[in-house]
Amino acid sequence: MTSTPTPLTPVDPARLTEVLDGRWAHVRRDSREQLDDPRWAPVYGESMAEARERVTALAAELAATGRVSLGFPVEYGGADDAGGSVTAIEMLAQADLSLMVKAGVQWGLFGGAVQALGTKRQHDRYLPDIMGFALPGCFAMTETGHGSDVQQLRTTCTYDPATQTFDLHTPHEAARKDYIGNAAKDGRMAVVFAQLVTQGEGRGVHAFLVPIRDADGAPVPGVTIGDDGPKAGLLGVDNGRLTFDHVAVPRDMLLDRYGQVAADGTYTSSIENETRRFFTMLGTLVRGRVSVGGSAGAATKVALEIAVRYGDTRRQFSAPGEDREVVINDYLVHQRKLLPALAKTYALSFAQEELTSTMHDVLGAADVDEAAQRELESRAAGIKAVSTWHATRTIQLCREACGGAGYLAENRLPTLKADTDVFTTFEGDNTVLMQLVAKGLLTGYRDAFGSLDGWGRAAFVAEQVRETVLERTAARGLIQRLVDAVPGRDEDVSMLDRGWQLATFEDREKHLLESAIRRLRGGAAVKKDRPFDIFNDVQDHVLAAAEAHIDRVVLEAFVAGIERTPDPAARALLARVCDLYALSTIEADKGWFLEHGRLTPTRAKALTGAVNDLLKELRPHMRTLVDGFAIPESWLNCAIVAEEPGRQETMAAHDAALRSAGAQPQQEATATDLEMAPAQ
Amino acid sequence: MTSTPTPLTPVDPARLTEVLDGRWAHVRRDSREQLDDPRWAPVYGESMAEARERVTALAAELAATGRVSLGFPVEYGGADDAGGSVTAIEMLAQADLSLMVKAGVQWGLFGGAVQALGTKRQHDRYLPDIMGFALPGCFAMTETGHGSDVQQLRTTCTYDPATQTFDLHTPHEAARKDYIGNAAKDGRMAVVFAQLVTQGEGRGVHAFLVPIRDADGAPVPGVTIGDDGPKAGLLGVDNGRLTFDHVAVPRDMLLDRYGQVAADGTYTSSIENETRRFFTMLGTLVRGRVSVGGSAGAATKVALEIAVRYGDTRRQFSAPGEDREVVINDYLVHQRKLLPALAKTYALSFAQEELTSTMHDVLGAADVDEAAQRELESRAAGIKAVSTWHATRTIQLCREACGGAGYLAENRLPTLKADTDVFTTFEGDNTVLMQLVAKGLLTGYRDAFGSLDGWGRAAFVAEQVRETVLERTAARGLIQRLVDAVPGRDEDVSMLDRGWQLATFEDREKHLLESAIRRLRGGAAVKKDRPFDIFNDVQDHVLAAAEAHIDRVVLEAFVAGIERTPDPAARALLARVCDLYALSTIEADKGWFLEHGRLTPTRAKALTGAVNDLLKELRPHMRTLVDGFAIPESWLNCAIVAEEPGRQETMAAHDAALRSAGAQPQQEATATDLEMAPAQ
Repeated sequence: MTSTPTPLTPVDPARLTEVLDGRWAHVRRDSREQLDDPRWAPVYGESMAEARERVTALAAELAATGRVSLGFPVEYGGADDAGGSVTAIEMLAQADLSLMVKAGVQWGLFGGAVQALGTKRQHDRYLPDIMGFALPGCFAMTETGHGSDVQQLRTTCTYDPATQTFDLHTPHEAARKDYIGNAAKDGRMAVVFAQLVTQGEGRGVHAFLVPIRDADGAPVPGVTIGDDGPKAGLLGVDNGRLTFDHVAVPRDMLLDRYGQVAADGTYTSSIENETRRFFTMLGTLVRGRVSVGGSAGAATKVALEIAVRYGDTRRQFSAPGEDREVVINDYLVHQRKLLPALAKTYALSFAQEELTSTMHDVLGAADVDEAAQRELESRAAGIKAVSTWHATRTIQLCREACGGAGYLAENRLPTLKADTDVFTTFEGDNTVLMQLVAKGLLTGYRDAFGSLDGWGRAAFVAEQVRETVLERTAARGLIQRLVDAVPGRDEDVSMLDRGWQLATFEDREKHLLESAIRRLRGGAAVKKDRPFDIFNDVQDHVLAAAEAHIDRVVLEAFVAGIERTPDPAARALLARVCDLYALSTIEADKGWFLEHGRLTPTRAKALTGAVNDLLKELRPHMRTLVDGFAIPESWLNCAIVAEEPGRQETMAAHDAALRSAGAQPQQEATATDLEMAPAQ
Repeated sequence: MTSTPTPLTPVDPARLTEVLDGRWAHVRRDSREQLDDPRWAPVYGESMAEARERVTALAAELAATGRVSLGFPVEYGGADDAGGSVTAIEMLAQADLSLMVKAGVQWGLFGGAVQALGTKRQHDRYLPDIMGFALPGCFAMTETGHGSDVQQLRTTCTYDPATQTFDLHTPHEAARKDYIGNAAKDGRMAVVFAQLVTQGEGRGVHAFLVPIRDADGAPVPGVTIGDDGPKAGLLGVDNGRLTFDHVAVPRDMLLDRYGQVAADGTYTSSIENETRRFFTMLGTLVRGRVSVGGSAGAATKVALEIAVRYGDTRRQFSAPGEDREVVINDYLVHQRKLLPALAKTYALSFAQEELTSTMHDVLGAADVDEAAQRELESRAAGIKAVSTWHATRTIQLCREACGGAGYLAENRLPTLKADTDVFTTFEGDNTVLMQLVAKGLLTGYRDAFGSLDGWGRAAFVAEQVRETVLERTAARGLIQRLVDAVPGRDEDVSMLDRGWQLATFEDREKHLLESAIRRLRGGAAVKKDRPFDIFNDVQDHVLAAAEAHIDRVVLEAFVAGIERTPDPAARALLARVCDLYALSTIEADKGWFLEHGRLTPTRAKALTGAVNDLLKELRPHMRTLVDGFAIPESWLNCAIVAEEPGRQETMAAHDAALRSAGAQPQQEATATDLEMAPAQ
């Protein structure tokens, strides 16, 4: 873990895999072994109908393996293993993302909602069929008009004591349920989120279990089902639209764990405050977001494996005085694209592992710890946003790093990009999620803001913030020791000093938060009349604080992960990769550090040099780092990495022959010249 | 043009269109009028076969309009209008990108090669059929193993005096022609680039006109045709692979404008130096790159129009104390996404116009000006790279700005993203192209480097560089006056001073170039033995210099464009947009400016404030700015912008009713709170 540069030695990728696999290694190994077959890999060039058929069949097959039941209660054949269930779904993302999403909808969202929001009689009646895929279902929350702000859903469900049924209704087109997985083709039932009204009073959003298709697959009376049609990707997922025209829903179909309606319409709930009740219900659904972040990371690994392996065989431009052309992974700019992305992928992998573990423990706890729950939701939101943005950017750069080959479906990258693209906006729009994180950091701020003149409590708020920032998120003792050991953040400290890196991340977060508070306070003082502007004017600043926070969480998780690494060689390599993650993150925000006197111009320049040195040092280990992901060859389904090894040699032999035949363009053509002038 | 903030007044979008349309306004207007029909818009959910059929039919229809013949000689029914031909193809990009690429292949690359590299007898025989699409053809340059480094193509074409034919041959799989448009389905002939060998000597890459299919569409003997199959996008373009097994090519099928082979095999050429000859041939094909840059810009405009219009109707989260929810274009962070992208799109639009104009004049010049040709190629490469990267990033952010709706094919964005994605790597990989730009800036450097110890000429080189940097690329007089008028780059100068902005861009470019030279020189002194490393170690630095150069070229073009704007209100608006382009570009590279003492921390912070002020000022004009693109409604084919206007009102009415019914969640839910906490 120490950062004094120990020269790197060759590493067995298996040593890296062991660390990355973490607490649910058994689930990962099981998926790799049991699903190591081409039929689990994506198929290219299918029609939407073909893709949907194939994925539905695979989902049924998957159900039969029991692999997707881990998260359900033991008494129904599950394992009460929330972490395992998220991991199992994440593994599918390396094979076929349509299947991953289909499984996420059926067993994560739909099944998870019945499990979390329903009660025993509903579990007894529905969970077995849901787990076995005999009852395919939908999670009908999002509406065309409301996605991020789900507390404002427009669908209504009004109780009528006379008939003892609810009247489920879609008041206008923008209130129809939209983008709903399993709706267009397979879904028999849907968990519908709607505004509960009883005794003429709105009780806020509640979930109802509603049949949408009969045994023959025809929509039930009153339910109109639309098809979202072709999408950028995820062709195998049947997303659709649901509109309800005064559909009668029996009273016992309200998922009533958190709110009950008596026969006479009397409403009862263990949670008084409506907003708190609503967010408690949503809180139980945190698994969805954790799954998306993990799946984004899994897909990113596939893209990087393809780009790194291609970059080791693809040659272009010959170096001066050399016969053989240069492999593109040897170009500094190519390393500048792939290696920092690879480092961040490792970092996020450790953060995701930690998040999954926390989620597992919080959800499994005997009694609900509200603070822990809230922190978990904030962490899940932040990691999801950062992981999915990273996936979109990285898969895009991997596709570009493979040139024309990266544009062909047969090389997987187009499917990876298109399928994961929706991750940045579903299960919560990333920008909105990052603001949720900021909200979590501005602890107590909302209360202080409750009354616009309540600024007396500002000092208290600042205190809180300081608390928040200083709280370690992982390996607390170790990280504190590392930070304390830093002689100070001046010129002399090595940038490879882990303590300096940690302190630098922490300092930026702290400063961004405290200055955001100051600006909000200042704004409130002069803009009492325009409360919206008070927040809107600092929205970019507040987002930056949230990002800085997640960056630190991720770095701390990486440090903890290295600490868990037994093999010395693997540990040394991971330490170098962590250096690259830390320094390239600081480099990317160099402007801020210089602007706030955290870096001197001299040190900022040295930073660029340090990053380039790390690239040189890590270049020989690029292949090892992607091999550490242990992705089954059968899942890659990528022509450019599947090509027979003999080819490079054939080319080399031919080139030699060509040269001796004198047909080789004059040797004036060199990488240094031509690469700069392919067309002049 | 002055930058003293004049308050903005409403602008008629038509005034913006007039300026943007520029020199080939008549071609643009003609396309908008003649092709304003849904059948020219993209179709969603087609199979590859359906898309190919449709696009082939449209290409034939297009040929009949003569719209794509503008670039061909008058004597064959063309107009000798190179600029017009590029503009006509660019316009297709706003309708259907598959059609744009198909047209680019047939009339730009294939027809353009026959025109530029062939001679009169070949023009007489083939141009009419090519123009009329009676002879669909391919531009077979790229090979699986060589794309960027085309001087190293492996396909050989060996002349045999006995038979007076060439023997065209593909020596190994990596030498097959790949990603070739028109090859998989329609192509009857191909312009094949291969190493010419005659009298046992290699003469470098030459182009040959080769039949690949017979009248019945079957491959001719010796030619194997493969299909590249499904791609990320451009489903309507039939990209394929060509392999030649000792195909006999008649002597007169060599496109022999720049190199001739006599019956006895004697080789003659007006250009002695082989490399110079090769790049002269390639130089005549610059139109392709200009087309791609222009088409990328055209597609970017479509994406921005969709995102801006959606952002003006999409509401989410209610502001405190207000009934109506906030339109997302009112959020600072949403403006931070869309407006700088919009400003850069305007900037690039002016740069593209200038490039097209220069290309038209250089190609049309009576006698070839080698320096002008070389500068044109460098400019075309740089603008193509910057425009296509900008397109990929902007279309991606527009898709994310539209949330789930942006992921549905019916809303156009997925097709736009997938179709344009290849632009960053075809017609030259962007990274390689930016190095070509750098090469152009390091004038004479290559000569100086010719002998590794020739450093005596370094001073001369530095001189050259200074020259290069100081050379204005547009509106020379005006820009010089603006720069001279700057009192100095100290704290007091307004960041809205155009002269300061220009001087700041120029200063960064100059410093990056000169320091790159210094580092190359220094490296050469100590690494005489590893010439490759000398360049590779500064590759990122050299690329940064090239980017800074293109940024300046683009800013100068914007300034010149504003100068050409007659309408005062439009002029004032464009000046503001130009401020945003300039300041957001500086802000994006803030780290560099601080690191090099070009910005003080105080001024750097003020910069962020200035950008946010510009966003506020431009917010009311977002819609006007996209309306200025004048994209025919029939080309958008986007459901979310086509929705009936009444809908928003229906929703508002319903919400009011809902509130009075008391079913509205407590008003505690506000944009400021909820937006930060949609899930807690």
